[in-house]
Amino acid sequence: MSVIPFGLKPRLERMAKDIDILFDTWLKVPSDSRARLYEAMRHAAIGGGKRLRPMLVVASSELFNVDRDRAMRVGFAVECIHVYSLIHDDLPCMDDDDLRRGRPTVHKAFDEATAVLAGDCLLALAFEILGEEATHPDAFVRAELMAELARASGPSGMGGGQMMDLAAEHQELDLPAVTRLQHLKTGALFAFCVEAGAIMARVPAEHRTHLRGYARDLGLAFQIADDLLDVEGDEEEAGKRLGKDAEAGKATFVSLLGVDRARQQADMLVQQAIDHLQSFGKEADTLRAIARFTIERTH
Amino acid sequence: MSVIPFGLKPRLERMAKDIDILFDTWLKVPSDSRARLYEAMRHAAIGGGKRLRPMLVVASSELFNVDRDRAMRVGFAVECIHVYSLIHDDLPCMDDDDLRRGRPTVHKAFDEATAVLAGDCLLALAFEILGEEATHPDAFVRAELMAELARASGPSGMGGGQMMDLAAEHQELDLPAVTRLQHLKTGALFAFCVEAGAIMARVPAEHRTHLRGYARDLGLAFQIADDLLDVEGDEEEAGKRLGKDAEAGKATFVSLLGVDRARQQADMLVQQAIDHLQSFGKEADTLRAIARFTIERTH
Repeated sequence: MSVIPFGLKPRLERMAKDIDILFDTWLKVPSDSRARLYEAMRHAAIGGGKRLRPMLVVASSELFNVDRDRAMRVGFAVECIHVYSLIHDDLPCMDDDDLRRGRPTVHKAFDEATAVLAGDCLLALAFEILGEEATHPDAFVRAELMAELARASGPSGMGGGQMMDLAAEHQELDLPAVTRLQHLKTGALFAFCVEAGAIMARVPAEHRTHLRGYARDLGLAFQIADDLLDVEGDEEEAGKRLGKDAEAGKATFVSLLGVDRARQQADMLVQQAIDHLQSFGKEADTLRAIARFTIERTH
Repeated sequence: MSVIPFGLKPRLERMAKDIDILFDTWLKVPSDSRARLYEAMRHAAIGGGKRLRPMLVVASSELFNVDRDRAMRVGFAVECIHVYSLIHDDLPCMDDDDLRRGRPTVHKAFDEATAVLAGDCLLALAFEILGEEATHPDAFVRAELMAELARASGPSGMGGGQMMDLAAEHQELDLPAVTRLQHLKTGALFAFCVEAGAIMARVPAEHRTHLRGYARDLGLAFQIADDLLDVEGDEEEAGKRLGKDAEAGKATFVSLLGVDRARQQADMLVQQAIDHLQSFGKEADTLRAIARFTIERTH
């Protein structure tokens, strides 16, 4: 059982339901030969996942009284990016995983070509969603959301981090190198989520320093927790194969620091993340709860 | 030797050079372990291709006196999408091609994982480019460009068309089905290119009917020409394997209509495309020349 900070659990449950509804609405299966593509996207997207990224978008939007429906659309777009990255990461030429969220991965349940396309289409779909006026009536905001999400996803963000991760199988990374890899691979998208509320409220970039600090520390804490779960977690609860990093001889926070120091480091980062929110009152409580949740979760 | 309508040849040559410069600038190889990713994107993107899509964007921008530098950025973004689609289409799980533009495909020159990632990153990069203020000072225009490009690339556009194409190996398609497949697979991106000039000039969607008509006919003519080259073309000049559709038993315009009727159909479509431009004067001459070029090209 996961230990979820008081108040966050029902919110995560509601989020899971709302995101499933959005996927179901956007991915209605067409009555032509694209049906298989939509089925594959639905297989990967619906009914699983912590939905932590959309939760971050909604929580950051609460700081600035941004309308929840709009925040949900942005969170949904980020989740499209996240799901696309999982589908491609699971491919035989990448991590070669058969199981994800307790179900066969897309290339197992369908085939590799469909998996590649399903990922591609979810990536494009994210920008389709953000581009609609319903996301935000102000075109400046829509343009900034799309530009920032593109940066967070591409070669200077998640895509570049994934390349570093592939290269890590043939290299001996030290702590700064692993930290940089993770800042790109998971941190960039986290940072987008946390800044999204401020973008929607048109808070200028120079006033988002605290939020970026929060996102940076949260992202690393999340990754250390992931590394710990890869070593100590329960495969059934995780719904995926564990122990892969050690098997591949990849340097992680845990292999470099050891279990105990890694856990201390994660605790410290969470405290630091929460400290960045000092200038906010109760409206930042969800972000604080999310920070604690990242290291207390069991999958 | 290609027969290129008078005046278009030097413009295509200039375009090829300018697009290479843009790729070279945007894809500077970083001095970290992402280097391989950037090398792979450069391998696929630089030094080859007809650059027909950016040419369409620049030509459509001339109708409305849009600044060439801005049009070039949009054309460049479309070319990123086009190159990404070629990298993924060539993968072993898709068309399994070893040669593209006379060089080894990305998964051959590098490896499959890098090829998947290089495609993903070019897709994200397209939106990064469009999102910058240098593309257009008006955020409304940037937002519309990104939204429309996303639609043209995703499951209702190119991505969906590619799925239909995969499914076509197990189906007997008739002419309407092949037409619909091609409208999605190649037509959607062509339509974006042709409308891009109007979007940048803030011409409302309801006044773009003629341009959409031109794009629709042009896209089909282009595809029929491609099908004819697949049957009759020269592999060395094409720089890729030909005769694949017949080998896979896929229905094409040529298999359904025969060579002669397919050629007549393409001629007719080009005339129709040019007719859509009647309300324009000399400023549409490049679009007219491009229409003729699509069926007179030899690769």
